Amino acid sequence: MKVILDGRAAHYRTVWFEAAANQVRMIDQRLLPHEFAVLSTRTFHETAAAIRDMAVRGAGAIGAAAAYGLAQGACAFRGRDLGRFSGHVEKVIQTLKAARPTAVDPVNAMRRVRAAMETGETVEEQQRLALAAAEDFANEDVRHCEAIGRQGARLIRAGMNVLTHCNAGWLAFVDVGSATAPLYAAHAAGKRFHVYCDETRPRCQGATLTAWELAQQGISHEVIADNAAGHLMQRGRIDLVIVGSDRTLGRTGEVANKIGTYTKAVLARRHRIPFYVAIPLSTLDWNLTSGSEIPIEERDPAEVLGAWGVPAAWAGATRGKSPQRGRAGLKTGRAVYVRVANPGSPAYNPGFDVTPPDLITGLITPAGIFKPHELWKHRRRLGFEG
Amino acid sequence: MKVILDGRAAHYRTVWFEAAANQVRMIDQRLLPHEFAVLSTRTFHETAAAIRDMAVRGAGAIGAAAAYGLAQGACAFRGRDLGRFSGHVEKVIQTLKAARPTAVDPVNAMRRVRAAMETGETVEEQQRLALAAAEDFANEDVRHCEAIGRQGARLIRAGMNVLTHCNAGWLAFVDVGSATAPLYAAHAAGKRFHVYCDETRPRCQGATLTAWELAQQGISHEVIADNAAGHLMQRGRIDLVIVGSDRTLGRTGEVANKIGTYTKAVLARRHRIPFYVAIPLSTLDWNLTSGSEIPIEERDPAEVLGAWGVPAAWAGATRGKSPQRGRAGLKTGRAVYVRVANPGSPAYNPGFDVTPPDLITGLITPAGIFKPHELWKHRRRLGFEG
Repeated sequence: MKVILDGRAAHYRTVWFEAAANQVRMIDQRLLPHEFAVLSTRTFHETAAAIRDMAVRGAGAIGAAAAYGLAQGACAFRGRDLGRFSGHVEKVIQTLKAARPTAVDPVNAMRRVRAAMETGETVEEQQRLALAAAEDFANEDVRHCEAIGRQGARLIRAGMNVLTHCNAGWLAFVDVGSATAPLYAAHAAGKRFHVYCDETRPRCQGATLTAWELAQQGISHEVIADNAAGHLMQRGRIDLVIVGSDRTLGRTGEVANKIGTYTKAVLARRHRIPFYVAIPLSTLDWNLTSGSEIPIEERDPAEVLGAWGVPAAWAGATRGKSPQRGRAGLKTGRAVYVRVANPGSPAYNPGFDVTPPDLITGLITPAGIFKPHELWKHRRRLGFEG
Repeated sequence: MKVILDGRAAHYRTVWFEAAANQVRMIDQRLLPHEFAVLSTRTFHETAAAIRDMAVRGAGAIGAAAAYGLAQGACAFRGRDLGRFSGHVEKVIQTLKAARPTAVDPVNAMRRVRAAMETGETVEEQQRLALAAAEDFANEDVRHCEAIGRQGARLIRAGMNVLTHCNAGWLAFVDVGSATAPLYAAHAAGKRFHVYCDETRPRCQGATLTAWELAQQGISHEVIADNAAGHLMQRGRIDLVIVGSDRTLGRTGEVANKIGTYTKAVLARRHRIPFYVAIPLSTLDWNLTSGSEIPIEERDPAEVLGAWGVPAAWAGATRGKSPQRGRAGLKTGRAVYVRVANPGSPAYNPGFDVTPPDLITGLITPAGIFKPHELWKHRRRLGFEG
């Protein structure tokens, strides 16, 4: 997508490969939204470290980063011994997998790259195939997101106010994003609308990443506290909700997504506002038979007890006073962690919640918009191989 | 209420008067929860400044601070000329009123003190009456909160999980608080229960003030992101919700309270969880006939775009990394403002929302627990003088 640098627009994917230098390049998401920088990794070890340290994050993006990292590691091999090459490749895969041990996308991505490689008969051919397969994986991620965009764009009419939650944006994928894809497609088609970005505590991916993305594309938007969505709906100021999904149960239509998604769905139902979930095919889980089986990750309480931001000056420096409006006094710099809550108090920090199908108007997939209970019927079209 | 200082418990009100020194004393709430300090004001000008700068905040607390400030100003007058004294008192009232020009509590409090003063026939007598009336005002605030506590304590059973929003605690009053009063009364009666404190973005009064209060009283509690309440309710982990009110419509039973209150009420209804509002009599508005007439204050967008906290060390200093658990590395100090959101993005920051009566199980008043539509029937008992 478009990134504005020194007033000029440039196109970036979140992660890409420079074959000539055998380097993976990525937008360093640890610095966003306060600073834009591209990180280059020279070895698969460095690529694994970038995944581990979350320079790149988001399902599609870490899948592609791992695919490229595998190709990078394969191409760094010198020699013609297929047996030794295969052992090296196995080491590369284990290293990249260990970078985010619970994530499924790097595993799936690398399985595909390896399967493609193994059709080659020489080291050189396998190296070439690895590169092509990694590139294919990244391109397919983009095509899927673009298809979600085409499907979802028709939900957006000019003048609408759309609510989003968290960041299921292009930063979480190779490009375009899932929940943001309909926004970008509608915007590209000339529709003008307004987006309210839930800040999405505790990690504030809405206030930081989604707001940054929308600002780069020139899409009208405002950040709101997670507490404000109900009030906006009550006052008729939200027409449509689009969120992403971390796991979608193909048998029930339940959606596990960032904590707070369920709350927005309950509010949307009360106000009869359409609530859509954009689901990349990789999030589909055809095995589980109930959302209560989805493990809900409990994250570090310190996320809730504090916040990350760039110290900014305003008149006075005590909590009771108002900071300056707008950008005055703002220094760009790296974010630091501040403790907000009472120092002696503990916190409870579930990372995700589960939204039941009765609250979901539709699931926007690359293959069409479906009712939650229709997923199973359309399972072959949606890639179910069981 | 109890405050733990250097491991020892002491009892504090939020604001009180030292007649011998003619000083108003108050807990400096700008420093909480990171630092506990008592601020003494030597003149009514200093008291007005403390109200303006929010060293003291919350309806009942600023009412009492203004009442004390008026007594302080009156007692500082030297002379026996009642005409000149009256002019001086008028100046004191205007100065204190201007400290928080939109707040109604200081005005009401000072009206009562002045009415009491005017029954005196000499300057000295009026000074004495001012002091007594200010003390009466503060004591009545405490009695009302204690009565809310007695009424509400029966809603709390041992082992319950109670959700609160924002800080309608003793720091917002002279003592005891409104939404917290039932908790403190139940705890004093030996009941043991657990409280989830919504952090209450954007100002985080739940994570800072309510959590601090509960910690001082030794009540089991955890801070949660505002996004987490829906998930907790869905999993059966919340049994009761108690919130405060900034304005309660006596004719309709609608409640205006901190942004996010409405969302919790909608969630509680979906899960059939009792939702109670503790209402101090001073919040009752007998004039408005619809919640849509309540002006919703739009606050500084910078509140949503950032956060206040004390810089705390943890391994690494980039957003992607996890801060250390618990208190390790935490330095106590004054809170600073950090910019969290994308620097180029605007925010929308409504300060309050309106909860309709159909979502409210009951209103906890000093005179009993009523259904929202019963307020008008009981208006004389609730102090309606129209």
